[in-house]
Amino acid sequence: MSSPDSNLLSINTATVRAQWSLPEIVAGCARRGIGRVAPWRDQVAATGLKESAQRIRDAGLALSGYCRGGMFPALDRGGRRAALDDNKRAVDEALSLSAPCLVLVVGGLPKDSAGRPASKDLASAREMVRDGIGELLEYARPAGMPLAIEPLHPMYAADRACVNTISHANDLCDELGAGVGIAVDVYHVWWDPALRSEIERAGGHSGRLLAFHICDWLVPTTDLLLDRGMMGDGVIDIPLIRSWMESAGYRGAHEVEIFSAGNWWKKDPDEVLITCIERHRTVC
Amino acid sequence: MSSPDSNLLSINTATVRAQWSLPEIVAGCARRGIGRVAPWRDQVAATGLKESAQRIRDAGLALSGYCRGGMFPALDRGGRRAALDDNKRAVDEALSLSAPCLVLVVGGLPKDSAGRPASKDLASAREMVRDGIGELLEYARPAGMPLAIEPLHPMYAADRACVNTISHANDLCDELGAGVGIAVDVYHVWWDPALRSEIERAGGHSGRLLAFHICDWLVPTTDLLLDRGMMGDGVIDIPLIRSWMESAGYRGAHEVEIFSAGNWWKKDPDEVLITCIERHRTVC
Repeated sequence: MSSPDSNLLSINTATVRAQWSLPEIVAGCARRGIGRVAPWRDQVAATGLKESAQRIRDAGLALSGYCRGGMFPALDRGGRRAALDDNKRAVDEALSLSAPCLVLVVGGLPKDSAGRPASKDLASAREMVRDGIGELLEYARPAGMPLAIEPLHPMYAADRACVNTISHANDLCDELGAGVGIAVDVYHVWWDPALRSEIERAGGHSGRLLAFHICDWLVPTTDLLLDRGMMGDGVIDIPLIRSWMESAGYRGAHEVEIFSAGNWWKKDPDEVLITCIERHRTVC
Repeated sequence: MSSPDSNLLSINTATVRAQWSLPEIVAGCARRGIGRVAPWRDQVAATGLKESAQRIRDAGLALSGYCRGGMFPALDRGGRRAALDDNKRAVDEALSLSAPCLVLVVGGLPKDSAGRPASKDLASAREMVRDGIGELLEYARPAGMPLAIEPLHPMYAADRACVNTISHANDLCDELGAGVGIAVDVYHVWWDPALRSEIERAGGHSGRLLAFHICDWLVPTTDLLLDRGMMGDGVIDIPLIRSWMESAGYRGAHEVEIFSAGNWWKKDPDEVLITCIERHRTVC
């Protein structure tokens, strides 16, 4: 494999969120010659939507995606309606920011008011996800904002996303039609024996490959959520998966998304960016 | 669903391993009217194979399985040969203990001498697993000891088992032929959208359903290995999965296997057994 095009590197703002505000991240990326970012809604809200869009534009940055919509399942109709309304606002924000897609973390089992799982009916949660994306599509499709379903690792099936394989995401895309695609994050899907064939299925004529997220799986992993590794520090064969993405026609960004409470979130954020640039060039 | 037959309850000895030796577990189960156990090799070794078999027999207990063989991948031929030899010894022990099957945790990526992953080639590790089980079958099949592939949760793909779905295990059984089947542990497979169809595929005429392990998935889960929940304390719909197992013809044991460093391993082991009996009756 040849080194990836450095122009394709993008920084998901979660990677340095513990150290920097969104304006600081935008300035830091511009300073280091990184041309793309993927901001999170809470960071945009803290800065203000207009100012966020302005700063990103003024810095000459493009977005690789907007994080995130989703969380569709809820115990009652009112809860699902509230989720849909919030997702519509996320679509509006993504449009204001000129994002190429809105990433969807679809949600797990319905929760009670304290945030605890209030159901064991996984099949029903998956139906709520399908219905929720379908309803959101009626809003997002005419607005021209692609929705990117992000299959999450099966260890998040209960509390974050009950779509856990690209196969399942492809099935949803088959059912829901135009306007919805897939965000492939190596952290979530690297283990899947069907990964190559499902990337192929999502690519080419299907045109569903909307985003490519990179980081690494550490051994041991000490926390289910906040112990992701820097590319090269774990066991994922990133160049191999990138080659499958490229064979399937993907030409978009390589977005670094690292949640790392114990390590990268404690480092000088400028050093983190330098490391992202270096590792992207050498091990991705 | 009606309550399960209490005679089918089995205790995997890992569930109280922090508190009791194997003789104590055997005596404790017998005292509580639990008719089956599934011991681990290290506990059997500590007690001695002959004495373990004698104590289990004298207590009137049967085995629901023997834990465990596997760990096939290795960096070199010598390492793979050593793994095979060790697996043959596990088959011998399983025969001495009159186990109905030897459970296989197949291993993840090959490790270096310090136990760290020394390869990112997951496809190759999976080939080593297929070849390793195939070689072991030449020994186990004529000896009459069924091998039970246990698909492990995808979060263990790197370090414990690179067979992570029943679908993959079924494919291996298709390829390897008679003498090998599947151990279904709800903890590892509950999230899988193909769970029902793959249990059906493994059942009936195929006759591959060799074991059924139960515990629960906690939300949040605080440790990847040692934070399993007691049945009823998490989000797994155990009666639903049991109904699929029974529809597929499974009539064997319901084996409780709980690794719980922070909770159940700290409790009075007799209380743990009482809780297992109660929860098996009420929520499984």
